[in-house]
Amino acid sequence: MKRFAVVGHLAATSGTFSLNDLAGSGGRMDVLCRCINSSFFLSHDLRRDVECYLVLCGEPGPEKTVLFRGSEVRYLSPDERSSAALIKKALSIPCGDEFRESTPGVYVRRGGLARLLAGIPFAVLDEAGEDVRTVPALPEAYLLSDHHNFTAEEEALIAGYSRYSVGPRSLHADHTITVLLNEMDRRES
Amino acid sequence: MKRFAVVGHLAATSGTFSLNDLAGSGGRMDVLCRCINSSFFLSHDLRRDVECYLVLCGEPGPEKTVLFRGSEVRYLSPDERSSAALIKKALSIPCGDEFRESTPGVYVRRGGLARLLAGIPFAVLDEAGEDVRTVPALPEAYLLSDHHNFTAEEEALIAGYSRYSVGPRSLHADHTITVLLNEMDRRES
Repeated sequence: MKRFAVVGHLAATSGTFSLNDLAGSGGRMDVLCRCINSSFFLSHDLRRDVECYLVLCGEPGPEKTVLFRGSEVRYLSPDERSSAALIKKALSIPCGDEFRESTPGVYVRRGGLARLLAGIPFAVLDEAGEDVRTVPALPEAYLLSDHHNFTAEEEALIAGYSRYSVGPRSLHADHTITVLLNEMDRRES
Repeated sequence: MKRFAVVGHLAATSGTFSLNDLAGSGGRMDVLCRCINSSFFLSHDLRRDVECYLVLCGEPGPEKTVLFRGSEVRYLSPDERSSAALIKKALSIPCGDEFRESTPGVYVRRGGLARLLAGIPFAVLDEAGEDVRTVPALPEAYLLSDHHNFTAEEEALIAGYSRYSVGPRSLHADHTITVLLNEMDRRES
């Protein structure tokens, strides 16, 4: 199972944001929607072996984590508005301590990065990390940040984690996922 | 100069499509918007050495070509709605035989693929093509199709063109651009 987790530092934690203003009222929810797209979509197919965790840290709080499971997800189209609608739905149901399904293959629970890291051995995508093309064995789970860097508090949580880079330029999170999946595809083929 | 051209087989040729329904009323304009995103966006920077041509072949016709120039473009944000708004604006001005600027760095003219191919030596991105990682020298200009394959008429126009692949899986056009730019970044670094 391949796993990606993306921290949305300003991303809305309530389902009241507008689908017509994902960047503003959604707290750059557009960034996370593009990460859903890049995690799952192939040409006329979905990557069923991927899970993507969105760590939402914005208003009104507290933090929530939304999980998309490729093996189960339905009603997901490639456009930002489609994944945003599924996130909005997830944020609109009562949120408990355990993942609860809001639509097929989409789940939501309370809690943020600390809890997520406690359960899954993530590597960190970081432009200063080791090149994914040359590392002998690639990890299966990767943590990324949205348009903001990891905070000092988050960096403390991931101190000592393995770090990997996808190339010489600093890329958006969704582009990083696309390049990384291409490397994984090549190794599997 | 790096150039990408994407054929939008159903993409609207009038500015009346809805920003709230890019996939439906825009004729899968969302696909082209994501290609704009992947052509230009770096983390906190724009690729100024890229041009992206969108060949719009949908209703109501006739075909139009919208050009985004990285060296000049303004008011472009990463979200689909942002590039869609610039495309909508371009499709709303009188369209002539030569490129005319609608907003800074965005241009529109009449004509489709045949005219575009007459002016620029494109290579074709095709999963059956040569692997971009192993080709000694990469071309600078690439033609891609949206969610539909090239039509028989289009294939006739590009018969004999060099063809390149970005890997073993068939990817969306925007993901293909991202992987290709990563290969170019690596060669330039």
